Amino acid sequence: MDKLVKYRALIQELLAAYASPEQQIFESGTEEQLIFDTVRDHYQLLAVGWERDRRVFFCVLHLDIKGNKIWLQENSTDYDIVADLVSKGVSPSDIVIGFHPKEVRALTEFAVA
Amino acid sequence: MDKLVKYRALIQELLAAYASPEQQIFESGTEEQLIFDTVRDHYQLLAVGWERDRRVFFCVLHLDIKGNKIWLQENSTDYDIVADLVSKGVSPSDIVIGFHPKEVRALTEFAVA
Repeated sequence: MDKLVKYRALIQELLAAYASPEQQIFESGTEEQLIFDTVRDHYQLLAVGWERDRRVFFCVLHLDIKGNKIWLQENSTDYDIVADLVSKGVSPSDIVIGFHPKEVRALTEFAVA
Repeated sequence: MDKLVKYRALIQELLAAYASPEQQIFESGTEEQLIFDTVRDHYQLLAVGWERDRRVFFCVLHLDIKGNKIWLQENSTDYDIVADLVSKGVSPSDIVIGFHPKEVRALTEFAVA
């Protein structure tokens, strides 16, 4: 499955690039965690820490590979990671927008499941 | 570092046990994902899916190993995973409750950082 090897590498590359220190989204008390489970094919960028006396804990981006497709499960940013996936050669029919209801997915160029 | 090998195995064991199908916390449209990044030492149980027309996406439990200690970063359940860690032999001085402010951590038997 060459395709999946490529998808795995691409997802990790895009999350790592988005998490790079140049972005400086968070204050110093908040850590950006890259979480790559290449066995179960779950990939997440998580923000964890404190900004002064306020707890920070939220998922920035989360993608899975499931049934030979890339599932975007969460995107709390305005970064269009789907456009980046497509521009890097992923077919829209191999991308599922998990947070869209199935009826909505059916109206787009992307996959339903 | 025998201790860390033990901590890694223990965290994965406790999360997997909590995610076991017998618990049946969620409806069938929601998947419980075990996310184990043993390279970066991040461990998460995530709920992802749909309950009828409502999107489900939240972190159930999240633990890290950092600086030879176990950090509990999120617990959205009433499961006392810290008690389980201690009962399995982890010293309270090796556990950091990340979602407690540092001033609060200093007042407990657990570690500040």
